[in-house]
Amino acid sequence: PPRNAEKRINCTKIINRTNNFTSVCGGETASMSQQAVNGVPCRGKVLTVDNMNPNVKRVEYAVRGPIVQRAVQIEKELREGVKKPFTEVIKANIGDAHAMGQKPITFLRQVLALCSYPELLEDNKFPEDAKKRAQRILGACGGHSIGAYSASQGIECVRQDVARYIEKRDGGIPSNPDNIYLSTGASDAIVTMLKLLVCGEGRDRTGVMISIPQYPLYSAALADLGAVQISYYLDEEKCWSLDVAELRRALNAARQHCNPRVLCIINPGNPTGTNKDLIHFHLKNNQLSQVQSRQCIEDVIRFAKEEHLFLMADEVYQDNVYAEGCKFHSFKKVLFEMGPEYSSTVEMASFHSTSKCYMGECGFRGGYMEVINMDPEVKTQLTKLVSVRLCPPVPGQALLDLVVNPPQPDEPSYITFMKERTAVLSALAEKARLTEQTFNAVPGITCNPVQGAMYTFPRITLPEKAIDKAKEEGKVPDMYYCMRLLEEEGICLVPGSGFGQREGTFHFRMTILPPTEKLKVVLQKIRDFHVRFTQEFS
Amino acid sequence: PPRNAEKRINCTKIINRTNNFTSVCGGETASMSQQAVNGVPCRGKVLTVDNMNPNVKRVEYAVRGPIVQRAVQIEKELREGVKKPFTEVIKANIGDAHAMGQKPITFLRQVLALCSYPELLEDNKFPEDAKKRAQRILGACGGHSIGAYSASQGIECVRQDVARYIEKRDGGIPSNPDNIYLSTGASDAIVTMLKLLVCGEGRDRTGVMISIPQYPLYSAALADLGAVQISYYLDEEKCWSLDVAELRRALNAARQHCNPRVLCIINPGNPTGTNKDLIHFHLKNNQLSQVQSRQCIEDVIRFAKEEHLFLMADEVYQDNVYAEGCKFHSFKKVLFEMGPEYSSTVEMASFHSTSKCYMGECGFRGGYMEVINMDPEVKTQLTKLVSVRLCPPVPGQALLDLVVNPPQPDEPSYITFMKERTAVLSALAEKARLTEQTFNAVPGITCNPVQGAMYTFPRITLPEKAIDKAKEEGKVPDMYYCMRLLEEEGICLVPGSGFGQREGTFHFRMTILPPTEKLKVVLQKIRDFHVRFTQEFS
Repeated sequence: PPRNAEKRINCTKIINRTNNFTSVCGGETASMSQQAVNGVPCRGKVLTVDNMNPNVKRVEYAVRGPIVQRAVQIEKELREGVKKPFTEVIKANIGDAHAMGQKPITFLRQVLALCSYPELLEDNKFPEDAKKRAQRILGACGGHSIGAYSASQGIECVRQDVARYIEKRDGGIPSNPDNIYLSTGASDAIVTMLKLLVCGEGRDRTGVMISIPQYPLYSAALADLGAVQISYYLDEEKCWSLDVAELRRALNAARQHCNPRVLCIINPGNPTGTNKDLIHFHLKNNQLSQVQSRQCIEDVIRFAKEEHLFLMADEVYQDNVYAEGCKFHSFKKVLFEMGPEYSSTVEMASFHSTSKCYMGECGFRGGYMEVINMDPEVKTQLTKLVSVRLCPPVPGQALLDLVVNPPQPDEPSYITFMKERTAVLSALAEKARLTEQTFNAVPGITCNPVQGAMYTFPRITLPEKAIDKAKEEGKVPDMYYCMRLLEEEGICLVPGSGFGQREGTFHFRMTILPPTEKLKVVLQKIRDFHVRFTQEFS
Repeated sequence: PPRNAEKRINCTKIINRTNNFTSVCGGETASMSQQAVNGVPCRGKVLTVDNMNPNVKRVEYAVRGPIVQRAVQIEKELREGVKKPFTEVIKANIGDAHAMGQKPITFLRQVLALCSYPELLEDNKFPEDAKKRAQRILGACGGHSIGAYSASQGIECVRQDVARYIEKRDGGIPSNPDNIYLSTGASDAIVTMLKLLVCGEGRDRTGVMISIPQYPLYSAALADLGAVQISYYLDEEKCWSLDVAELRRALNAARQHCNPRVLCIINPGNPTGTNKDLIHFHLKNNQLSQVQSRQCIEDVIRFAKEEHLFLMADEVYQDNVYAEGCKFHSFKKVLFEMGPEYSSTVEMASFHSTSKCYMGECGFRGGYMEVINMDPEVKTQLTKLVSVRLCPPVPGQALLDLVVNPPQPDEPSYITFMKERTAVLSALAEKARLTEQTFNAVPGITCNPVQGAMYTFPRITLPEKAIDKAKEEGKVPDMYYCMRLLEEEGICLVPGSGFGQREGTFHFRMTILPPTEKLKVVLQKIRDFHVRFTQEFS
């Protein structure tokens, strides 16, 4: 039968490739013909890289890619006593605040301890407001335990608190707890939302617009779902601004080969560290005009409506805004201020997380999304879909509740909480300035201001000879650069190619999270390396 | 252009269906022609149930389906003072131990509190072994905080502990921490593994064998992935036994229309509450033969090898084995005891969770899978795929570490831990017996022994007139039955149709988790209802 014949061919191929029959067929070489004689064709693995899900093979995720794997290896080598030109690997590849030494916010962890081990509610060492929060969360859990499953959409009282938080943030624009879906970090909600939106085959396949540079969760999820990525470029010359003309160019080009249905925006930006509110700020020589600062968001919303696109607003860095005189404007707020023509029609999902901002609680995998103007039948499907995974982690839900409902001025934990929160955010603002200044003083590195989020995405000029050398080694030039930096200085960054960049330009993403003293060392080491690297290839 | 024309047609359709133009197009009716005049076609929602991901629409998950949604509604009505023939809804639809009143294991929660708020390490109220565990876990976390991301595959020391646990469980058969992947509950790992395995189109599409009845995560994941479900039936007459002849029948039938590549087994069984180890036990009049008890698992493994199938062993109920004289045999142990012809060739993944067994910590979403004989290149792809979601929730990883590395006899928490663990497991064994006996005494209900897991799946005989009545109401008969039971007695079960059953037979799944006194009430209410229901339609 043809299927067996096919398998036999595959088998030969595998054997030839691995040159190791025993490990493939698990018998001795002699048994090959025996097996064939007995009518059982010789077969390799059931699951091989040649017959696995092809979409998964296309997935790439640079933030934890080859360079990070090598960093982990080097750490192991250091522990085993291998001599290196450095004593420690500093991982500036990922926005992982606690790993960088940031201390957890006391109030959050007190409540989590109380929820984990309610016997502590009897303990006088815990402040009353922490106990009150824990009791309220436990009261909303099945059997008063965070070990029970919650509703699939998330604990109801947490969703209510999220809705109130959004209302307060957006100056009173209403938010409905039924539109809030708690999630396993923001990543989970983003992937779920994309999954709902993907359909069609060939030219009708769903296209999703994402910025370049982008956070690679998006490209990874699109590859996994077999959707079409539509790249629009941010303008590095104009402080990574987003231009509607560029959105339109990308959209029109994409209409030739797919069905564009979704527009994703990251604000404040990852990896660019910019704030959509601010693009005109820098264009106008530091003359901030409050009217213009929202213009970009309005333009994007108008574009989405005109072009019949579903808007996905990744706003996980909403508390990470450093540039002076500037605040975060949510897409929802701007949408509603544009009047009912927009607020009652434009479909949108906005995402938030416990992993970033002042708390940096990545390990808890907490997050939420708010859906706006979603078709009720689709919402029913969404609720059904999330129910298959039962519920987001309940400790993460509890944590999210505290983030959206922090200590109030009349509560005993308020002062400490505000002190800790402010310390984190002002240190980040200081580090944002430090990073920009240091990089811009290095010949061959140029860096936009870090206005928001927790990253910088400087552009690096690489000598032609270095580019040739990289190609010789089969590496993308900025990957070659970052790998050399890792091997020589122990600094782990992510090459710009992992986020996307204009052809012929090179960048890296670095988090500004290391403590100030360590950050200074990191910046110094990158400067020294860059100078050395440039000389080597000149 | 054709695309716009198409959109206009869709729009008309939506308007006709909803009969509410304003809500669809967000303007006044008069604006419809205006919009068309301006060249902007009238358009409905971007995302509708007609143009969303069709695979998501096919997903069904009965455990949290319509009956549970109605139960939540009834609870709300009760709170609002609506009079019902009962004062409380008892949700026996899901294996949610803490929600059913089971108390968390003290040791687990002490360590979690210490990990959440390490200041408690100074507190004398916590036993030394709990502190030691917490310090070890924190030491393995970035910045000594469970708020840092872990490695995507899971914290290394937790994976080492998991490997040691498996070795001990399986009598010394080696386990490699590199083959352990921690996950967000077992569901996450099961879906990830299925995702890797799915490829091909049309007749070449991957087929996955699952038991009927099954746990609906499997059918839901297959629908989502667009894979082909291959149903093999468990034999209710023989205590839900699994017969290789039936596996072969299902496989051969499926080969006509897909490419079968995966065999999924749930042991101990969900929803059937049976143990593969035990099928011969009941066939042989309570004469347990240790040799025969493993026969079924061996047969399945042999079948998988012969037919070139990837084995997925869902073993999340591995501590929930109640039948006397019987223990859990893992598929891996049996595989390795069958000799190198099998142990070095058969590809397998085995799944475990923190949600079941004696701990019942569902809300933490902890779990792991062990992969065996997986192609190294595929493993690289798997590691890359899980990295996109960054990491499983770290509190769940910490919890899993305690489950696989519980207090030892020489440690201070041992006695309390064992007392609590034994109390849960023996109560479950007692409730398993009680459930079987009570149901089998009701005419029209027959029930296999609950040998393992935490469910019973009794068969119910429904009068012809009841079946007709259900059809009249457009309901599946066992859904009609369960809905009536919910409305009249406040008991929430899942209809057998949600798990699959042989044509013409009807069942429900009930968890045996309610506390003994409440379980007695539940069983009594079901008995009364069943008698009444049968009389009504006779």
